[in-house]
Amino acid sequence: MPLLFYERLAADNRRPSPFCWRTRFALAHKRLEPEICAVRFTEADQLAFSGQGRVPILVDGDQVISDSWLIACYLEEAYPDHPSLFGGAVGRDLTRVLNHWVDTTLQRALAEPFIPSLHAILDPADQAYFRKSREETWGCTLEQLHNERAKYLSAFPPLLEPLRLKLDETPYICGEQPTYGDYLIFAVFQWARCTDPVDILSEHDTVLREWRTRMLDLHNGLARSVPAFKTAA
Amino acid sequence: MPLLFYERLAADNRRPSPFCWRTRFALAHKRLEPEICAVRFTEADQLAFSGQGRVPILVDGDQVISDSWLIACYLEEAYPDHPSLFGGAVGRDLTRVLNHWVDTTLQRALAEPFIPSLHAILDPADQAYFRKSREETWGCTLEQLHNERAKYLSAFPPLLEPLRLKLDETPYICGEQPTYGDYLIFAVFQWARCTDPVDILSEHDTVLREWRTRMLDLHNGLARSVPAFKTAA
Repeated sequence: MPLLFYERLAADNRRPSPFCWRTRFALAHKRLEPEICAVRFTEADQLAFSGQGRVPILVDGDQVISDSWLIACYLEEAYPDHPSLFGGAVGRDLTRVLNHWVDTTLQRALAEPFIPSLHAILDPADQAYFRKSREETWGCTLEQLHNERAKYLSAFPPLLEPLRLKLDETPYICGEQPTYGDYLIFAVFQWARCTDPVDILSEHDTVLREWRTRMLDLHNGLARSVPAFKTAA
Repeated sequence: MPLLFYERLAADNRRPSPFCWRTRFALAHKRLEPEICAVRFTEADQLAFSGQGRVPILVDGDQVISDSWLIACYLEEAYPDHPSLFGGAVGRDLTRVLNHWVDTTLQRALAEPFIPSLHAILDPADQAYFRKSREETWGCTLEQLHNERAKYLSAFPPLLEPLRLKLDETPYICGEQPTYGDYLIFAVFQWARCTDPVDILSEHDTVLREWRTRMLDLHNGLARSVPAFKTAA
């Protein structure tokens, strides 16, 4: 049975979901090559088989798993002889802490500036749905979010300080080699470069820039294999 | 050769250093029972043998290690048959990320409100030194820091959100059992209860309060074995 991976699709073949990038890298780390099914926001009927409407979804034989964290845990258990994503039980739990931190700080901080950018790269058929749902969630228009863009973007770099300190010690966040913790963080940067022309790292942020380049090169340049804006290396 | 552990001493036998609590718990986790040498700020001459002036310091035979992180790494390598602090190489690197996060967010956020509180619990001989050094570092008086106390304390609870989410899933931050990641975080709470009467957790912060109680009970109530303020459980 082939492995199927469902992810988000925008216009011009762009792949803008940070949650899906976590899983794409987890699959590559496990040396698995899924068939990729890219789905627009307004094609949720294609996901109905999973009992919910969000991506990523992994289908492995008769197993259907949604939620990026649950997929990572599934892969680690189902493919124990492939390279480990967590490095053991304590590593898994600490990776989960990092996952919650990424969700509540890094991705949270970029939600406001990137929602209008994501709207701009969607297919026209998706734009109406996306505007309505996001304007309801945030209680303001996309244009109002866009007007506050500079403030939101400037709040992002200080949040990276723990990572900067760690990457001054080891080439990857998880040590000498990347594991799922690196993918969690890198997915934020990949989301950025697929979605918005801005470079979220200053030109002086050398330690993080060099790590980002290493991550872009990983797994035969997986992150570079999709359309992206040029500024972010 | 006995194991010697140097930590900070305040008046009335109080032990207010969060860095030292990290190490005290790491030693207890490794089932090691060091001889404790508690040193006041103005007794730095007693630490000269270590080539620097800060605590914690661990002396194990002819090994002298300062810095809480280096001590944890030393203990993990020197006592591999005792319970693990990190659960492997990836666990160690992710714990180091957590360490940098604690330093730059949780402990950083409580520095301003707790510097005046620490001054208040020091021996009179230490107070003059401490006031001078901290007022130079912060560029303002202890009284000015104290005047901003409410603002600083209110900024602390939101920082705990990733931990709240994790502790809603497992009894300890590092999973089913505590490891060094739990000690890193708990040392902040132990610092608080040894230093200041305020409870840094709201009465509604159930998940974190229950974890804190579990941590207070660990290792035969190690955290409860020293003088502390009553409010923080």
